[in-house]
Amino acid sequence: RFVVRKIAVHDTTKDRGFCVPAGILTTDWNDLVNDPEIDVIVELIGGVAEASRLVRAALTAKKMVITGNKALLAEEGHELVALAEKEDVPLYFEAAVAGGIPIIKVVREALVGNHIQSIYGIINGTSNYILTRMADAELDYAVALKEAQDLGYAEANPTFDVDGVDSAHKLAILTALAYGVPPDTEHMYVEGIRNITLNDIAYAAEMGYRIRLLGISEVSDNRITQRVHPCLLTDRSPIANIDGVLNAVMVECDELGPLLMEGAGAGATPTASAVISDIVECARGIPIPAFTSSTRMLDTEPFSSMEEHQGAYYIRLNVKDNPGVLSAVTSALSKETIGLDSVLQKGHKQSDSAQVALTTFPATEKTVKKALRSIAAMEYVLEPPHVIRIEEV
Amino acid sequence: RFVVRKIAVHDTTKDRGFCVPAGILTTDWNDLVNDPEIDVIVELIGGVAEASRLVRAALTAKKMVITGNKALLAEEGHELVALAEKEDVPLYFEAAVAGGIPIIKVVREALVGNHIQSIYGIINGTSNYILTRMADAELDYAVALKEAQDLGYAEANPTFDVDGVDSAHKLAILTALAYGVPPDTEHMYVEGIRNITLNDIAYAAEMGYRIRLLGISEVSDNRITQRVHPCLLTDRSPIANIDGVLNAVMVECDELGPLLMEGAGAGATPTASAVISDIVECARGIPIPAFTSSTRMLDTEPFSSMEEHQGAYYIRLNVKDNPGVLSAVTSALSKETIGLDSVLQKGHKQSDSAQVALTTFPATEKTVKKALRSIAAMEYVLEPPHVIRIEEV
Repeated sequence: RFVVRKIAVHDTTKDRGFCVPAGILTTDWNDLVNDPEIDVIVELIGGVAEASRLVRAALTAKKMVITGNKALLAEEGHELVALAEKEDVPLYFEAAVAGGIPIIKVVREALVGNHIQSIYGIINGTSNYILTRMADAELDYAVALKEAQDLGYAEANPTFDVDGVDSAHKLAILTALAYGVPPDTEHMYVEGIRNITLNDIAYAAEMGYRIRLLGISEVSDNRITQRVHPCLLTDRSPIANIDGVLNAVMVECDELGPLLMEGAGAGATPTASAVISDIVECARGIPIPAFTSSTRMLDTEPFSSMEEHQGAYYIRLNVKDNPGVLSAVTSALSKETIGLDSVLQKGHKQSDSAQVALTTFPATEKTVKKALRSIAAMEYVLEPPHVIRIEEV
Repeated sequence: RFVVRKIAVHDTTKDRGFCVPAGILTTDWNDLVNDPEIDVIVELIGGVAEASRLVRAALTAKKMVITGNKALLAEEGHELVALAEKEDVPLYFEAAVAGGIPIIKVVREALVGNHIQSIYGIINGTSNYILTRMADAELDYAVALKEAQDLGYAEANPTFDVDGVDSAHKLAILTALAYGVPPDTEHMYVEGIRNITLNDIAYAAEMGYRIRLLGISEVSDNRITQRVHPCLLTDRSPIANIDGVLNAVMVECDELGPLLMEGAGAGATPTASAVISDIVECARGIPIPAFTSSTRMLDTEPFSSMEEHQGAYYIRLNVKDNPGVLSAVTSALSKETIGLDSVLQKGHKQSDSAQVALTTFPATEKTVKKALRSIAAMEYVLEPPHVIRIEEV
């Protein structure tokens, strides 16, 4: 039987819609850390600095700790796990990634007999909501963002969500779980959805693709690639049809094969579902190593750089409507031995500019960037190329 | 560290493609039960009678037991769990339902903070393979079944798979997990896919549906409905697009909302993934109650009967091509206050018979059956009506 002893809040007088017995509320989390009757402390305050002090104090006081704080874990997860192991108390964080989807438990426990080859998915509901609304209601990015803010899905300052920062934090945790390395957001390519336009969504749709912001962590030749960026996914991809604020995580395993989980990635009750599961886990008493293996066995594996990424690319150009343009562009690509898969060209009404959308066969990021530099420098190319990576998932 | 002490098999001389150290193989499972060095026994022999003796002997000898035997658990799960609790050893069975998808762990541990409202899905890969191939390659049922048999997906005697028996066993286990009742296949409606024709698949497609065999367990007014039958699902349903031998399970929870899991439902390595997860669970040492609550808290909840089922129906009739038929059929439905949603009628070339496919608005099974009896008795109706339930999932 669990008893709620104390709740630390900023404002003890705020009406929270339910009754809290007198004496439970405090404004000082030290009251929880110093209470010998308290066995488990749940940290859901967000932010890094104060949460870090709280979690460290709690672990040092040998309290079991549950946190939903992805930024804290991405930045200090390795140290915190080491501290938890030193104090021999568990540190659980099911709510930190993909909300109510029990991806942490599944990777850590259910997939323990597998080597994980890749783990990826839609792990930011706000961005997914914006992309879904842009496509379904033909809203401009700014309008869809405003709608998400009005609905409470996006913050007034949306940068964490739309610039991929939140996805990056979660991906670092998934990487740590899947491969037993410390969470690392340094060795990660991160790009958000701010530059996605209705044009891109329309061209993508015409070519049979949908645009989704993915976090992808994959191992190849014993090196890990971590990347967060918008992706073109074919209509047939199970992840392409995850709409609105839902999250979806795919784990590719050597024994089990692919495992896909979809569900609510945020919100009060999905978070509660994850936290309660962690609380019950605490009651079982035997801590499970946080990042698959004990931190003592962790090692900084070489992360491969984004320059080495290999994949197909979607490139959209705004060009002067001139017969020589397409030939110049394709020759710039072929000079880097980048094969062209498809081309869509549309003239603008009442203007002498045209949109050219093309897709390439798989090539390395490095060569694509090189070709794009020479394309961007062309006289007939009116603005920097819009580039979105195509994922075969 | 785990050590494989003994493996009981029928034939110790069979080449299994990997090296087994001398002295490990035996033909008598009592050698495992009686070995004081053995802590965990994994039962993967299948069938009920001998597996039951083995599992009971192992539990009585205070061995931790892992089984993938859905038939055994569906039929004797309540007694076996009670025995495991009496002996204070765990009984784990992750491999018993949906193969490598960790649905047991997720329902039992990750969703512990939720009340489950329904749990359903595609839990027989063989049937799903047959239905997928019928639709995609326009194969007759018998041809698709033969193909599944040739590929090793279906047994020579396919009745367990195609008649819904295997799904029924798994659904009984899911019901027990989700609602804390003993597994019960008696209070369950079970219908397989033998009577699905290419005609049905074509008409369904024309109406925007795909046909899938689902196991569905849902609670309404504190009563449980368990049913296994083919369903018409709209193209947009995430479950409608699960193809081939894949499994998918959806859990509708009060806090988390819907959680969907997709993955390999059978096969050697997915089963191994599940069994290894159970073995590691055994090493943690603290058994979790098998069916959510301890068996002492279980109670036989009232199961509601299929007659009370409420839903929309697809009905296909083979009729004499006569102008009065449709009017007679619709009046038989409206007499039972069953509303007609859509009608498709096609004359047969070179014959005076016609196919009429119609869908109803939601109605109770009881009234639909009554209407169908009067329709079947009509002079112009040439064969018993083909009925498939429509699910809004």
